[in-house]
Amino acid sequence: MVAYREATAEQAAFLDDLLGAGLFVATEVDGLYGQGAAFARVLTGFDGAVSRLAAADAMESMHFPPLLTRYQLETNGYLGSFPHLAGTVFSFEGRDGEAAEQESIAARHEDWSRFQTMSDVVLAPAACYPVYPEIAKRGVLPDGGVTVDTGAAWVFRNEPSRDPARMRSFHMREFARIASPDDILAFRNLWLARVTGLVGRLGLTAASEIANDPFFGRAGRMLAANQREQELKFELVAQIGGPEPTAIASFNYHQDHFSLVYGLGFADGGVAHTGCVAFGVERVVLALFRAHGLDPQRWPSEVRAELWP
Amino acid sequence: MVAYREATAEQAAFLDDLLGAGLFVATEVDGLYGQGAAFARVLTGFDGAVSRLAAADAMESMHFPPLLTRYQLETNGYLGSFPHLAGTVFSFEGRDGEAAEQESIAARHEDWSRFQTMSDVVLAPAACYPVYPEIAKRGVLPDGGVTVDTGAAWVFRNEPSRDPARMRSFHMREFARIASPDDILAFRNLWLARVTGLVGRLGLTAASEIANDPFFGRAGRMLAANQREQELKFELVAQIGGPEPTAIASFNYHQDHFSLVYGLGFADGGVAHTGCVAFGVERVVLALFRAHGLDPQRWPSEVRAELWP
Repeated sequence: MVAYREATAEQAAFLDDLLGAGLFVATEVDGLYGQGAAFARVLTGFDGAVSRLAAADAMESMHFPPLLTRYQLETNGYLGSFPHLAGTVFSFEGRDGEAAEQESIAARHEDWSRFQTMSDVVLAPAACYPVYPEIAKRGVLPDGGVTVDTGAAWVFRNEPSRDPARMRSFHMREFARIASPDDILAFRNLWLARVTGLVGRLGLTAASEIANDPFFGRAGRMLAANQREQELKFELVAQIGGPEPTAIASFNYHQDHFSLVYGLGFADGGVAHTGCVAFGVERVVLALFRAHGLDPQRWPSEVRAELWP
Repeated sequence: MVAYREATAEQAAFLDDLLGAGLFVATEVDGLYGQGAAFARVLTGFDGAVSRLAAADAMESMHFPPLLTRYQLETNGYLGSFPHLAGTVFSFEGRDGEAAEQESIAARHEDWSRFQTMSDVVLAPAACYPVYPEIAKRGVLPDGGVTVDTGAAWVFRNEPSRDPARMRSFHMREFARIASPDDILAFRNLWLARVTGLVGRLGLTAASEIANDPFFGRAGRMLAANQREQELKFELVAQIGGPEPTAIASFNYHQDHFSLVYGLGFADGGVAHTGCVAFGVERVVLALFRAHGLDPQRWPSEVRAELWP
């Protein structure tokens, strides 16, 4: 069974509020929602605020679809660490007779999975994953490394819940940095300060803390402990459903993980490390609705000015 | 086997140009590309031009993720008409041992499909599909019906090709209209005129023609002939890869298909029909690059003014 994350009473009540106000549109499954006009407008406003924060950095822009090639998922280590969160894409390769049989079984909502075959694409689990192989293809890194802005990209986490902050399909915007170890750490610290400033101007009470990724299984507990001990991941957490706060952005240092997988390095033989800043875009938007109420017209004027200058 | 669409020499050459200019970013599979900064900027510009064209209509906005619930795909008839284009999402439900086995098989790029189980979500094949059940949930339609703007939503068509106009994951923006039959036809005609005007101002030579959907198999040939005979689908076609032109927008009249599936109707018992206007957003952008060259800075000033007023 897929791990269902029970929502707290506060989280479930907040979800009901969002649906009642038309900010979310319900579907038949938990964690998959349409977004109403007011929600989408705040999302676009926050995305613009992030762009303004990054404008001086002259990052390279690459917007990827919500899919990743299966080859990259098989290559980059995700299946070892997060098999429970991955989604793969299957498709139909049959002929007329099988198509008719598949349809009649599906129309009864019975099991038609045997007509589906694994394809060469999967759902993108993170916005930055297609960036590393693309940069590696170009050869050795330029001096100072590379920074890529993925824009707000749709990613997938197979984690159904009635906690509105735990969606299965949501936007992640990432700044991926490929550079010397010192540059990665400087980048992480710079962005931790910048984003802390931005969310403060947006009227959110957010704290930064050492964190770990949701690694799978028994071995995952050791990976998580190791990640915390080495302080490889920081998160900014804010109030969404509650009572516990939720991560709205993360600041990650991958050390040489992607460099070894893809052979990223400098012309002089110097080692490249990677890191990324990741925004859980819908989570920031949800934190804003939680902090300031369900009607953005009535939000504090400083907050509105930051979103829609 | 999935049907591979051979590209013409002109289409393949245009794809190479797009990759060479950094407008597209290659992946390991055909039909899945990242989008560089200049491409993304034109896409946003065109999306804005469409919004300005629709501004007076006061449509309801609903932005959906790139996923649809499996239940809706089983319900709305898509698997009968287009089983070859659908993508379903599978996921892992096992424990530690299976996860390790799956990972080691995947790392060798061998077949790990047996560890994956069909989930309750699929890839969205069209932007308007989640709209009809949502409107139906509200009960009888208001006088004059309903119009919904889906925004530029990611959709999936399992149709690998080196024709850059035939992507597997791309943005579709739709205006879905649920109203009386007369209102649907008036809406279609109004938008056919509006979009013809817009693409003309964008310097594209586009023709409108009667068209049919790519129905599957033997029965599909009859459905297609019927659709053409009843003039249910119009397309605006423009030059992209060539030599044949490609559809960049479609104007569709579904008659009572979705009304019967979802029970859409008026309080007085009047029948509701549905129709939609659909933009193949990347295709319009590709047509612009084809018509005006690979550097938007050098496009005609009227075109630039229409995209970035």
